[in-house]
Amino acid sequence: MRIAKILGTLGLVAAMAIGANAAEKKVKWKLAMTWGPTLTPFTTAVENMAKMVETMSGGDFVIRIDAANKHKAPFGVLDMVKLGQYEMAHSASYYWKGKDVNLLPFSTMPFGMTAPEQYAWFYHGGGMELMEKAYAPHNMLSFPGGNTGNQMGGWFRKEIKSLDDLKGLKMRIPGFAGEVLAKLGLTVTNIAPGELYTSLERGTIDALEWVGPGMDIKMGFHKIAPYYYTGWHEPATELQFLVNKKEFDKLSDKNKEILRVAMRLASYDMYIENYHMSTDAWASIATEYPNIKIKTFPKEVLDAMKKANDELLADMAKDQPLLKEILDSQKAYLTKSRAWTEMSDYLYLKDNL
Amino acid sequence: MRIAKILGTLGLVAAMAIGANAAEKKVKWKLAMTWGPTLTPFTTAVENMAKMVETMSGGDFVIRIDAANKHKAPFGVLDMVKLGQYEMAHSASYYWKGKDVNLLPFSTMPFGMTAPEQYAWFYHGGGMELMEKAYAPHNMLSFPGGNTGNQMGGWFRKEIKSLDDLKGLKMRIPGFAGEVLAKLGLTVTNIAPGELYTSLERGTIDALEWVGPGMDIKMGFHKIAPYYYTGWHEPATELQFLVNKKEFDKLSDKNKEILRVAMRLASYDMYIENYHMSTDAWASIATEYPNIKIKTFPKEVLDAMKKANDELLADMAKDQPLLKEILDSQKAYLTKSRAWTEMSDYLYLKDNL
Repeated sequence: MRIAKILGTLGLVAAMAIGANAAEKKVKWKLAMTWGPTLTPFTTAVENMAKMVETMSGGDFVIRIDAANKHKAPFGVLDMVKLGQYEMAHSASYYWKGKDVNLLPFSTMPFGMTAPEQYAWFYHGGGMELMEKAYAPHNMLSFPGGNTGNQMGGWFRKEIKSLDDLKGLKMRIPGFAGEVLAKLGLTVTNIAPGELYTSLERGTIDALEWVGPGMDIKMGFHKIAPYYYTGWHEPATELQFLVNKKEFDKLSDKNKEILRVAMRLASYDMYIENYHMSTDAWASIATEYPNIKIKTFPKEVLDAMKKANDELLADMAKDQPLLKEILDSQKAYLTKSRAWTEMSDYLYLKDNL
Repeated sequence: MRIAKILGTLGLVAAMAIGANAAEKKVKWKLAMTWGPTLTPFTTAVENMAKMVETMSGGDFVIRIDAANKHKAPFGVLDMVKLGQYEMAHSASYYWKGKDVNLLPFSTMPFGMTAPEQYAWFYHGGGMELMEKAYAPHNMLSFPGGNTGNQMGGWFRKEIKSLDDLKGLKMRIPGFAGEVLAKLGLTVTNIAPGELYTSLERGTIDALEWVGPGMDIKMGFHKIAPYYYTGWHEPATELQFLVNKKEFDKLSDKNKEILRVAMRLASYDMYIENYHMSTDAWASIATEYPNIKIKTFPKEVLDAMKKANDELLADMAKDQPLLKEILDSQKAYLTKSRAWTEMSDYLYLKDNL
C-alpha cells in the first residue's frame, strides 16, 4: 500500500512535470491585419489559417488575431513584424512600394497574370524564391495569403467611349494603377472607404474601383453608377502573410510545416470563397438592377493604359536590378503560361458562354 | 541518494509508459492508388499529402502508399476501401459509374464547370454535401484529390471540318465522353496506355485523347498527329481521395483535421503543378514541332456533342433522383458562376492574348 501510494504520488509529480513542459512548449503568436474585423473574405482567410494551426497542433500553437481597429496601424504592420512586435501580419505586398519598390510586384500587376498563372509562377516558376530574396533585407518571410481573383475596373457614372472621356475624370483608384491612370489625364484621388458611396452619389468623384461584385455589393455602388467596367489593373491580387524570420526559425519542424500548410491552404481557399461570393453577388445585382451594364474599355483606352504601365515600370526598374529581375521573371512566365491558358480555359469558355 | 535513485527509476518507468502510450497512439494507414508509381502529377498529390500528414503529426500519423503495380487492382480500389483492406485510395469518381451511377458527376462533366467554378461548387455551392450523400451507402468519404485543369480534346491525324469527318473515325476515348462520341458515329475503343503510340502511328486508331500537354508530352503523340483539339469533355477533372468512414471516425480530432487539410491542399497544389507542367510542355512542343495546329471543333460538331451529352444524361437520370439532384445542382451553379467567369477572367483574357 505504501509503495503504491509513493508510486502514485511520483506519477502525479511526473505528470505535472510533463504538463509544465508542454505548457512551456506552447507557442503563442500575435497577428496584425491591415483590415478591420469584418472584411470578408480577407478576414476569413486569417481566421481559417489560425483555426487550422490550433486544431492541427492540438492546441500547442495558437495565433491571436488583431484587426486594425485594435492595433490602429493598418499600414504599419510591415514595420511591426520587422520589429518583432507582432510575429505575423496579413496585408498586401503592393502597399510597401513606398518603403521598398522591390515588394511591389508580389500582389498583382496591371495586365499581368491570372490567378492560376500566378500561383504556378509562385510555386514552380521562381516566384517564391524571388519573394524570399526581396523580403530578406527586412528579416521577414512572405507567403501568399489569399487571392481576390480578377478585380473589376470599377464603377463609372458615365460611359467611356474614348480616351478623351477619361481626361479630367475624377476617380478613386489607389496605388500603382492610379499612377497609370494619372498618366492618361485622370484626376486620381484617395477617399476613405466610409465616404466613398456619398462621394460617388454627389459627384465629388465620377468613378471608383473597389474589388469585385462579392465585396462591392455591400458598398452599394450598383445603386448609383450604371457602368461596371471589366478589369485590367489587378488580374489576380494576392494578399500576403508576413512572418518575422527570427520567430519562424524558432519554431519546431512540425510547427513550421503546420504554419506553412495552413497559410497555403487559406490562400487558395480565399480565392475560391471570393469566386463564390462574386458569383452570388453578381447574380443578385443583375437580377435586382437589370440596367447595370458590363463594359470593357475601348481598345484605344486599353492601349494607352498598357503604354503608360510599360513606361512607368521601365522607369521604376531602371536603377533597380532586383525589381528588374522580378518583373522580367513575371513577364516571361506570363507569356509562356498565357499560351496554355488560351488553348485550355479561354478557348473552352469562348464556346461555352 | 537512495530516494533519488528510486525517483530516477520511477521517472524512467513513467517515461517508458508515456513512450508506450505514444507508440500505441501512432496511426498507420495504407493508401491504394489507381495509378502506377510514376504518373506525375497524380502521384505527387498523394506523396505530398502523405508527407504533410507525417510532418504535421510529428510522425504520429503515417500513410503508406501502394501504387497499382503493388496491389494489382487499379479499378478495385473503391471495393478495397469499402472492405477496409485499405483505409484510403486515390482515384477518380467517374470510374465508378458502372458500380453506382450517382458517383459519375464528381470528377468533371462534358461542357461542365472550369476548375475555380467547380471548387466553388464543391466548397460553397453544396457539392461536398452531395458527394457525402452519394458516398454514404458505400461507407466512405470522398474528397477532392487534385485537378488536371481543362483537358485537351485529343490528338487527331486529320483535320475535322464537319460532322461527317467524324463518322467511322476510330478514337481511343474511354468513359462517358466515349459514349457521347459513339452517338456521333465514331468507333470508340479503349487501348492500354503502353500501346497507344504504336496504335496511332500505324493507323489502328485515327485519334486519341489523353490529358493535356503536361502529361501528353511523355507519350510522344505530337510526333505523329499534327492536330491538337481543344477540350469539351473534361473541363476540370478532379481526382479523389477515398476514405473508409469507420477508419476516419476513429481518428482523433487533431488527426482528422491534419488529414482534411493535407488532402485539400494537395488537391489545389496538383491543379497548379499541372498548370505549370502544361505551360512548360506546350512551350517546348510548340518550339520543337511548329507544325502542330491547335484546333477547336467546328460549331456543328460541338452542337452535336452537346445534344448527345444532354440526351445521355437525361436518359441516365430518369429513374435516379439523387443523380438528377446532383446534375441539377451542377447545372444551376455552372450558369451562375459562368456569368462571373465571363465578366472577370474571360473578358480580361480576350483583351490580353
